[in-house]
Amino acid sequence: MSVKNKNITEPKTLQGFMELLPNRQILFNRIMDSIKNSYESFGFLPLDTPVLEYSSVLFAKAGEETEKQVYRFTKGDTDMALRFDLTVPLAKYVAKNYHNLAFPFRRYQIGKVYRGERPQKGRFREFYQADIDIIGDGELNILCDAEIVATIASVFKNLGFKEFKIQISNRRILGGFLRHIGLGDKVSQIGTAIDKLKKIGLDKLKQELEKLEIKANDIDNIVALLGLDNAKTTNDLVLKHLSKQANKFGDEFKQGVDELNTVINAIRDFGVSDSNVSIDLTIVRGLDYYTGTVFETFLTGHESVGSVCSGGRYDNLAGLYIDKNLPGVGISIGLTRLFDKLENDFNLANKSFINVLVVSADDCLDGMLLKVASEFRNAGVKSLSYLEQAKLKNKFKYAERLEIPFMAIIGESERANGTVSLKNLTTGEQFKEIKMTEAINIIKNNC
Amino acid sequence: MSVKNKNITEPKTLQGFMELLPNRQILFNRIMDSIKNSYESFGFLPLDTPVLEYSSVLFAKAGEETEKQVYRFTKGDTDMALRFDLTVPLAKYVAKNYHNLAFPFRRYQIGKVYRGERPQKGRFREFYQADIDIIGDGELNILCDAEIVATIASVFKNLGFKEFKIQISNRRILGGFLRHIGLGDKVSQIGTAIDKLKKIGLDKLKQELEKLEIKANDIDNIVALLGLDNAKTTNDLVLKHLSKQANKFGDEFKQGVDELNTVINAIRDFGVSDSNVSIDLTIVRGLDYYTGTVFETFLTGHESVGSVCSGGRYDNLAGLYIDKNLPGVGISIGLTRLFDKLENDFNLANKSFINVLVVSADDCLDGMLLKVASEFRNAGVKSLSYLEQAKLKNKFKYAERLEIPFMAIIGESERANGTVSLKNLTTGEQFKEIKMTEAINIIKNNC
Repeated sequence: MSVKNKNITEPKTLQGFMELLPNRQILFNRIMDSIKNSYESFGFLPLDTPVLEYSSVLFAKAGEETEKQVYRFTKGDTDMALRFDLTVPLAKYVAKNYHNLAFPFRRYQIGKVYRGERPQKGRFREFYQADIDIIGDGELNILCDAEIVATIASVFKNLGFKEFKIQISNRRILGGFLRHIGLGDKVSQIGTAIDKLKKIGLDKLKQELEKLEIKANDIDNIVALLGLDNAKTTNDLVLKHLSKQANKFGDEFKQGVDELNTVINAIRDFGVSDSNVSIDLTIVRGLDYYTGTVFETFLTGHESVGSVCSGGRYDNLAGLYIDKNLPGVGISIGLTRLFDKLENDFNLANKSFINVLVVSADDCLDGMLLKVASEFRNAGVKSLSYLEQAKLKNKFKYAERLEIPFMAIIGESERANGTVSLKNLTTGEQFKEIKMTEAINIIKNNC
Repeated sequence: MSVKNKNITEPKTLQGFMELLPNRQILFNRIMDSIKNSYESFGFLPLDTPVLEYSSVLFAKAGEETEKQVYRFTKGDTDMALRFDLTVPLAKYVAKNYHNLAFPFRRYQIGKVYRGERPQKGRFREFYQADIDIIGDGELNILCDAEIVATIASVFKNLGFKEFKIQISNRRILGGFLRHIGLGDKVSQIGTAIDKLKKIGLDKLKQELEKLEIKANDIDNIVALLGLDNAKTTNDLVLKHLSKQANKFGDEFKQGVDELNTVINAIRDFGVSDSNVSIDLTIVRGLDYYTGTVFETFLTGHESVGSVCSGGRYDNLAGLYIDKNLPGVGISIGLTRLFDKLENDFNLANKSFINVLVVSADDCLDGMLLKVASEFRNAGVKSLSYLEQAKLKNKFKYAERLEIPFMAIIGESERANGTVSLKNLTTGEQFKEIKMTEAINIIKNNC
């Protein structure tokens, strides 16, 4: 939009900042509410930390800033920045409030974060993350890892995705194995290569491992461990296979296998279907943060979107801010990106935002319109009166644009008899001059 | 908190940025949800504009920046700032999306805004505003002003405040009167003086008016117009009195009186009690923005907090961004301040956040805990399993800190018989070894 009048400022929005028209915003909010409800039903407590933090806090970990393309500035003497994720603020919060929190501390936070990424399609500079974490004081039961998986499963089920896979691994398995066979100094590089597997395929992965000067025999063993030589299998078979070898590759490996076993079985106790969970030892994730269980989530039919929910177990949340050992497990959903990619694929229960538009059949805009709308509202029916002079056709158009399912029409006769005429705008069905109680029932039964 | 270990960064939060502990955050969110529900039940559509905007957009109106103590910075070549209210972003949004919106456009937005105020008690630099506005294209029916008042009344009722006063005036009345008696050049100064009335009292107001070199006779007439000579009266009496004089002081005055009359009567049609509404011609508000109806809201017994919800009618929302005439009416609630001042005075329906904590009577943390918690959850009972090794006493303490009303205890016997023992932590009542269906019913009937 170019503006010619010199006194007029162009009403533009920053690039990479999502701003939705009302009908899309309503859908976005329903998705956000659904996630919130899933999180709350598992007993996660809400948190709402500031968008701005001291730079000293946000960038306590060296190298964080350049990596994240942050929005940093000074105001007065204060060096501050917009948060780039919800994990660093959580770490600060837990350290700051350590003595006032009940551990295990379970929180969810759904909020905007900021990264000055290069603008390109599907990249956002302001976007919502929807996180959960469980933080222990000193220790945290491995069952919590399973609980996080059960929560993820609940989230995507409630969003209307029936088929999805939560892929699970435990980083002690690959790490323990590599350290045991003398490749401890290459764990990080090998992990990075494996992380690319889904993009590059097995042959290229082998080439990458060769480039790392890993012996052919070791490469075969790694490939066998990851189960890549035998892609189609069940969780039970993988667990059985791993358990058999549990004592062969040292303590770390054994711990990883035991943890994975416990987690997979506990996930079943939560009632999560086996079809939604698969062990995948090629899941690695960011290398320096996660220490045990790691997860990624793929929606069946939408694998190209990548993982829609990732996370894992970490040893210590807040070591930068407090001299305490606070292990945790958590996940993050990139909500804005999810919405951007899958806007038409959510399958939420149909909850109309506004149930009924109350209009005058003629040009008489009197208190009757207000009274009828109030009566609907008091009965729990979301209503809106159309209060402008307009042709009836335009009132219908307004209802259509707002996707309102019912219209209540007040004409001379309705006014005289204290009735209302109702139209179901979806089916076209009409109810001439009915009582308000009847109208309320019809709407309630259809919204 | 001072940190001695040099490797540890102090986990501090910026001054003037509210950050709540979980139980307070839960209350804050319930308040926010209640306001949201009230807004939605009146058919306002949600909007969520970016926190960051181009400085050219936010400061299109000269002088805005210095006034608002804004957070402004550049990143790359882009001069941007954090929004200081939700009205300027709304104006931008409506101008930008003019052709894609259905008018009247009714939106609510609840979001954080930023002002670098001097830090002092009760002043926030990051705070929530909860706004509604109705925007017309070319014209907007005066009944919308009444609808805004009905929405405010619904908001505070639903927040549990039974006694409150929405004070209403119409700026055309005072403005028209002053212009008619030849004081048109002093409207702004007189308005500013009257705005201070509640703080300074009538005598000081008269002195202020004298300082403005207004004749004694005119001062008397102003005082009489404002109704200050006759404080105890009813809306009907004020309207009657104003109507009698409607033709005496010119067209603007008459329009103001007619509008006020229509608004007060329409508010009744919305079912708002007369006791919650009072005409108060001393309400002036910011002088250059509002043109007709203006409102302020005071909670009875909490008048010292000041107006908790203010707003009014304006002639043109977005003239800075689009060459269209877009009149509107709206209000804003300063949610963070409201919470800060009145945290203990809200009276919301008791909706426990987590309904039941599932614990083991012994140290056996097995799948049973997860199954029981899942069964509760599937029945709509928010549940949480306590998964750490701890003494039973500490499990009770955990429930207490999280204010969870029920505890479900699984011991050897419950495990063997597939039952659960339930304790109501509020009343102390115990239910030994009952069936899950029974436990679900007990909790549902008490939460």
